[in-house]
Amino acid sequence: MPAISKSAASIPASAIRMLTPFADKAKADGVKIYHLNIGAPDIKSPVSAVKALKEFSFDHLPYSNSAGTLELRKALVEKYYRKVGINIGLDDILVTTAGSESLSFIFHAAFDPGDEVIAMEPYYCNYNTLAKMNGVKVVAVHTDIRSGFALPPAEEIEKHITPRTKGIIVCNPSNPTGMIYGKAEMLAIAQICRRHDLFLISDEAYREFCYTEEPYFSALHLEGMDENVILVDSASKRYNLCGSRIGCLVSRNKDLMELITKFAQARLCPPVLGQAVVLGAIDADDAYFAAVKEEYIARRNYTVKALNAIPGVFTPEPKGAFYTVAELPVENATAFCKWLLTDFRLEGETVMITPVEPFYSTPGEGRNQVRVAYVLEVPELKKAMRILEKALETYNK
Amino acid sequence: MPAISKSAASIPASAIRMLTPFADKAKADGVKIYHLNIGAPDIKSPVSAVKALKEFSFDHLPYSNSAGTLELRKALVEKYYRKVGINIGLDDILVTTAGSESLSFIFHAAFDPGDEVIAMEPYYCNYNTLAKMNGVKVVAVHTDIRSGFALPPAEEIEKHITPRTKGIIVCNPSNPTGMIYGKAEMLAIAQICRRHDLFLISDEAYREFCYTEEPYFSALHLEGMDENVILVDSASKRYNLCGSRIGCLVSRNKDLMELITKFAQARLCPPVLGQAVVLGAIDADDAYFAAVKEEYIARRNYTVKALNAIPGVFTPEPKGAFYTVAELPVENATAFCKWLLTDFRLEGETVMITPVEPFYSTPGEGRNQVRVAYVLEVPELKKAMRILEKALETYNK
Repeated sequence: MPAISKSAASIPASAIRMLTPFADKAKADGVKIYHLNIGAPDIKSPVSAVKALKEFSFDHLPYSNSAGTLELRKALVEKYYRKVGINIGLDDILVTTAGSESLSFIFHAAFDPGDEVIAMEPYYCNYNTLAKMNGVKVVAVHTDIRSGFALPPAEEIEKHITPRTKGIIVCNPSNPTGMIYGKAEMLAIAQICRRHDLFLISDEAYREFCYTEEPYFSALHLEGMDENVILVDSASKRYNLCGSRIGCLVSRNKDLMELITKFAQARLCPPVLGQAVVLGAIDADDAYFAAVKEEYIARRNYTVKALNAIPGVFTPEPKGAFYTVAELPVENATAFCKWLLTDFRLEGETVMITPVEPFYSTPGEGRNQVRVAYVLEVPELKKAMRILEKALETYNK
Repeated sequence: MPAISKSAASIPASAIRMLTPFADKAKADGVKIYHLNIGAPDIKSPVSAVKALKEFSFDHLPYSNSAGTLELRKALVEKYYRKVGINIGLDDILVTTAGSESLSFIFHAAFDPGDEVIAMEPYYCNYNTLAKMNGVKVVAVHTDIRSGFALPPAEEIEKHITPRTKGIIVCNPSNPTGMIYGKAEMLAIAQICRRHDLFLISDEAYREFCYTEEPYFSALHLEGMDENVILVDSASKRYNLCGSRIGCLVSRNKDLMELITKFAQARLCPPVLGQAVVLGAIDADDAYFAAVKEEYIARRNYTVKALNAIPGVFTPEPKGAFYTVAELPVENATAFCKWLLTDFRLEGETVMITPVEPFYSTPGEGRNQVRVAYVLEVPELKKAMRILEKALETYNK
């Protein structure tokens, strides 16, 4: 019997999806589950996206250009990015099979096996798997829930830089914490990258989900960082088109884009139907985003208040995305999240949330934390929060 | 300026796509190009696929299961694979973002960096890039155009096995040669794999394109090879849905599937719209495949005859897929293919074909060979062959 990959065998199962079998079992038993576990909201996609699919007709479905259709790249550059104040050329962008593929390309193109990338923990746990696929190590810099997961001082971050460090990755707004790095934080990170010749990988999948007054500051707004900045972007959250699997990768670093183009050619092209739908979605007007934002602010405000009202629970106020990390009065949040699915029912219902421990690299950190995705309407969130409160009561008896 | 990946820098540009800029330039100048360079045929998809998309409606597009929708996996197992005599369970299959992603998962899950995979050259050139992304080396065993690219004897293959060899990859029917390994050849390869504890990776993307009387023999028909066989499959060619980016990976090796599931979870899910269209395509009836086969046999017969009628050109008769490899009376086929696009015009038209040298690992091999994809109707092929003949005349003057 041939042996499977030794280097890959240590890859952990997805923290976000590992509880799915227990949820499936509960559903099969007729239990209703409030899904606060995954970033799959109920918000409608722009009508222009729905229309684009309706108008798409084919008798066969050929490949597109490896970099994505010219129309989609043009629309991204000339309509979407221009609108958000990001000036890029057609050669700086490559359409990908969503943000995940952008990340995979980056970990293979900007890094060698054995290299290191710095991330502030807790960080999006799939960075780990995607990095490990090229033998890249995620080195975590700790941030603290009690200080709202604020960016640590430069000296603290620089302590983690070794001769193998090749980049810093940020998720802004952050999955899982919902925190935003503004202009000051981004300038501080840029300075570190310049000082140590590092790539700055900026995952901005949640760019449109900012609930502060401050205008959004993208890594591509940084000056003098053309060779360093690599943007990971995605249509998944922006237009609620997670299933389209369309994102893009943007960089002004020509050598990097040339190498990534080779990877892109080897996988032929990104999904063509998804590209057609996203091309339509780009025509979404400002009113679409304003309505979405208003809805999420209401959900966030409710969720944060409700969580902090539960005895022993603490969560800081997230400024963006649609997640918040909360401390629970339990020792092992993973066991609690599983128990919610396997054992606890309130009037035949339960709630599914995500343990945050796998979003930390430091052993033992975040053991009592969960990620709550506020992706349901407030009346539904109310029911879910009631279940969570009762569950904690029962669990701690 | 941070340095890009050293290990990836040696990855060659896609042989199939590297001439595209010259073709784009020619088209911009108003030149008509007969595209015999890429496996993107003009054949219609099954009407059931077109219907499936027409009936697909959404207001937002969530993720599917990481392994693909349950309906699609069921349809593949219970309708498609059962029909072609392959018995597998729902746990043995994972829907992927086409065959390319299946290959990428395999090179990361069955191999460690530094490991080797054996392929008979000429082989599908993207194996190289996808393997190199995990530091895996493709070791080529030479096959000869004059003997119709027949499988070399076991001793010859075994000469290439080292302590780092972890698998043998076959593309059956073959891209680029169009040759088929029947039961005898597959049994011979299986014996080598068993003897040396190797994975047998069988890329069967062209399974439905067999023009012989002998029934198709899949690697999954091999007995006692459950731990060794990994099937790469794709809807791209089968239903002419290249742009759907849907394929699958099949293996009865539980450890391997468990590891690959982790990769699959990290990239969230395969494209949802493509999955819906392929679910429809699976309902294609036998008449669909019979008509496609008849059409390709006519195209192949014409192409092989026309090529061999050109002075100095030789091609063996391919038995499957829709490619043939031909020797041309030129020293450097790459230069000739480029010249066709940049310099040669016959009544304002030219032809695009693919140099085969990058499909070989052995330096200097296949320098005078091209891959011709017979993906146009016979009247169009006639025009293309006339252009090729005149071009060779002019080039050799």
